[in-house]
Amino acid sequence: MEILQYFQQRTAVWLDMPPNARTETMTEPKTAGETGDLREGEVAVRLPERFDASLYYIGRIHTPWKRREDCPKNPRESDALCTIVLEPRWIGGLQGLETVSHVVVLYWMDKARRDLVLQAPHHYREPRGTFALRSPVRPNPIAVSVARLIRVEGNRLFVSGLDCVDDTPLLDIKPYFASTDSVPDALVGWHAGLKTE
Amino acid sequence: MEILQYFQQRTAVWLDMPPNARTETMTEPKTAGETGDLREGEVAVRLPERFDASLYYIGRIHTPWKRREDCPKNPRESDALCTIVLEPRWIGGLQGLETVSHVVVLYWMDKARRDLVLQAPHHYREPRGTFALRSPVRPNPIAVSVARLIRVEGNRLFVSGLDCVDDTPLLDIKPYFASTDSVPDALVGWHAGLKTE
Repeated sequence: MEILQYFQQRTAVWLDMPPNARTETMTEPKTAGETGDLREGEVAVRLPERFDASLYYIGRIHTPWKRREDCPKNPRESDALCTIVLEPRWIGGLQGLETVSHVVVLYWMDKARRDLVLQAPHHYREPRGTFALRSPVRPNPIAVSVARLIRVEGNRLFVSGLDCVDDTPLLDIKPYFASTDSVPDALVGWHAGLKTE
Repeated sequence: MEILQYFQQRTAVWLDMPPNARTETMTEPKTAGETGDLREGEVAVRLPERFDASLYYIGRIHTPWKRREDCPKNPRESDALCTIVLEPRWIGGLQGLETVSHVVVLYWMDKARRDLVLQAPHHYREPRGTFALRSPVRPNPIAVSVARLIRVEGNRLFVSGLDCVDDTPLLDIKPYFASTDSVPDALVGWHAGLKTE
């Protein structure tokens, strides 16, 4: 409620990135001007003047889906085999991973704009806050997906349970610990009230 | 086995970051020269010449632990109340989050070196690959923690289940969906064979 009032006093802001935030070696954040207009109820904010930390792409994820609209709506909707190809530099980091049944895969959704705080995804009726959604659109478009690890071959991991587009940049792989990562009774209240489509 | 052979042909590489990867606005990766020597069995690699993408710190996490050695060994070891303070710019993104029981918190472990592929943590006997461990030391030191959301007050989230040091930079907050994030029977084989200390 408070948050809504806060935004009722404001209008959407569409901005390009400040020039000092651009460098040749980085992926530039996508903003409204580059990726299309806002939907009704969506709110964009001005992005910070500068970045605070930087990432390496450590590999690529290969999936059967070439375009975002082809992807499953969530990772459990598909059993498709996907391949994570790690840059050879990091191959030593895989030692011991073959004993793990599930991995947490972090990847970079490089096509997503970063300036929306309220979003109105097509499949939900009303706009919601970015941090209440798993949308790729967020200040730091890092996806977290749990995948079943089928096998490791050299610098390749064969997994199922990913839903990203082909050639998505990989940021990290972690072992999934049921003791700390699994909360079977967790609830997303706003979502529980929706019919699944 | 293959991976071990690969490293037996190599020696540890200790390098500063290449100068073209440094900018004033970024956190510089920590390497051996800055953060101390390698332990027996540990292997460092040369970091890539350049970064691929960049992050905003969107807030800070406040916890009772001032130094890394004071932190719980994992998030379920403590029920301490922690506070996530979101930068006011992003407050709109919290709308709807109050209906969520658990959140996935992404944060940046800015004190960690980034160049190790084999690590020998104090509490385990043998070195293991970075991607088989949840150590902060990794090419992209992004932590993923599941926390119980107690309440939201303005730009503050009160949570339990975090284990990071006070003032840790926040990268993202996501709703935890049991349907896709919870795998109660996941197994970490190398860990299952160890006694818990």
